[in-house]
Amino acid sequence: RRCHHRSTAMLDVPFLPFCTFLGTLGLLCVAMVGTWCQHWRGGFSLDGSSRTFNWHPVLMVTGLVVLYGAAALVYRIPHTWSGPKLPWKVLHGSLALGAFILTVLGLAAVFRFHNAQGTPNMYSLHSWMGLGTVLLFSCQWVAGFGAFLLPWAPAWLRALYKPIHVFFGSTILMLSVASCVSGINEKLFFSLKNGTMQYKLLPAEAVFANTLGLLLLIFGVLVVAALARPSWKRPDSDSPDSRQVRDVQGG
Amino acid sequence: RRCHHRSTAMLDVPFLPFCTFLGTLGLLCVAMVGTWCQHWRGGFSLDGSSRTFNWHPVLMVTGLVVLYGAAALVYRIPHTWSGPKLPWKVLHGSLALGAFILTVLGLAAVFRFHNAQGTPNMYSLHSWMGLGTVLLFSCQWVAGFGAFLLPWAPAWLRALYKPIHVFFGSTILMLSVASCVSGINEKLFFSLKNGTMQYKLLPAEAVFANTLGLLLLIFGVLVVAALARPSWKRPDSDSPDSRQVRDVQGG
Repeated sequence: RRCHHRSTAMLDVPFLPFCTFLGTLGLLCVAMVGTWCQHWRGGFSLDGSSRTFNWHPVLMVTGLVVLYGAAALVYRIPHTWSGPKLPWKVLHGSLALGAFILTVLGLAAVFRFHNAQGTPNMYSLHSWMGLGTVLLFSCQWVAGFGAFLLPWAPAWLRALYKPIHVFFGSTILMLSVASCVSGINEKLFFSLKNGTMQYKLLPAEAVFANTLGLLLLIFGVLVVAALARPSWKRPDSDSPDSRQVRDVQGG
Repeated sequence: RRCHHRSTAMLDVPFLPFCTFLGTLGLLCVAMVGTWCQHWRGGFSLDGSSRTFNWHPVLMVTGLVVLYGAAALVYRIPHTWSGPKLPWKVLHGSLALGAFILTVLGLAAVFRFHNAQGTPNMYSLHSWMGLGTVLLFSCQWVAGFGAFLLPWAPAWLRALYKPIHVFFGSTILMLSVASCVSGINEKLFFSLKNGTMQYKLLPAEAVFANTLGLLLLIFGVLVVAALARPSWKRPDSDSPDSRQVRDVQGG
């Protein structure tokens, strides 16, 4: 048992430096998706051309992955563990709402592009998975708002729903990242078709966007890992013995 | 606190029926990927044609997702919680080894196909993510074998490595499923290009393979959820007070 204590302590990473690293990685992903669309894909516009499409990857990476990840991590900040819970709930819900609004704008960009080009919507596996993820996210937000922010939800309902909300929080992020990766892969096959710029010849754009995909995967895995880490969870004020559980678990 | 007890009990699902459902879902995924390749993609051969490629999705879905998922769930079977641990360790390691062998054969199929066709290997984001997943899996197997099956690893090393092994167990499965989904998406764009069979017109093959992708996502999410569920975890015989933690957590 003493061994176990010592070995657990060796793996202890403080939350805030880890979070700073995650924030840097998230901002790097946003900068990279913006650079990809600006430098290689012709930049941004609202005219229904492929420059309208370019809003889609930027808004999805920014909203559905990076801002969503920030929203998910709010309750892991030790400052949120004492004092009134409501301001942190409002922050968590607001960040998630911001992520959701960017996501809906990201969907609008690709639908506008498809409609302007006469391309059907919603045929690829990427689109099925992506829209499924956004629908889950909208249910998650509405149910979270109804259960935790509106005053009339009974305590038993909150206790019943909380582990479900936490589980879907991580699940939706994994699905978001998987959707982004399949979308980047698909976009590179669409865009890099001709001559010396073929995807299979790995031009600079392909290396850049493949790297973005791997960084998004790493970002998603690290956020899910941070959410799952027992010693970074907020002690649950509802249950008087939760402190004891944490002490036993944390060693 | 009594509310919390009751609400937790309402969410209790017995492990074995859940596992039967998961097994059925996994077998359905294997049957569907086989049907896709047999019925729509021309079947199987070893001649370097696209019929050689067809082994790739079948072996990856079967090995890297379904058999891998079965290996990961071994310690959640309540029968494994009492009696000697070694037979279950051997079963866990053997299922994972079987999954790994199928995975390597699946890689061999796509490399053989590319080489026979003169197509470069390892350019797409799908291939980067997929090979990264397989490399992580090989490290996971070797490290698990060295730490838990060979007799000379000290107890402190096992205790240090165990949470890392458990974390990467779920992470690799998520990456496997994300790789499969991006691969199915990519393959449908390659195969469904012409006339009335274009992917964007959603022919029967596209609906079938898109559905396979969604079922793989559901399988992966359910396995990760089963692995994360506290009340389905094997009580840790190393720590005398783990039983107490479980009682408190389980309500």
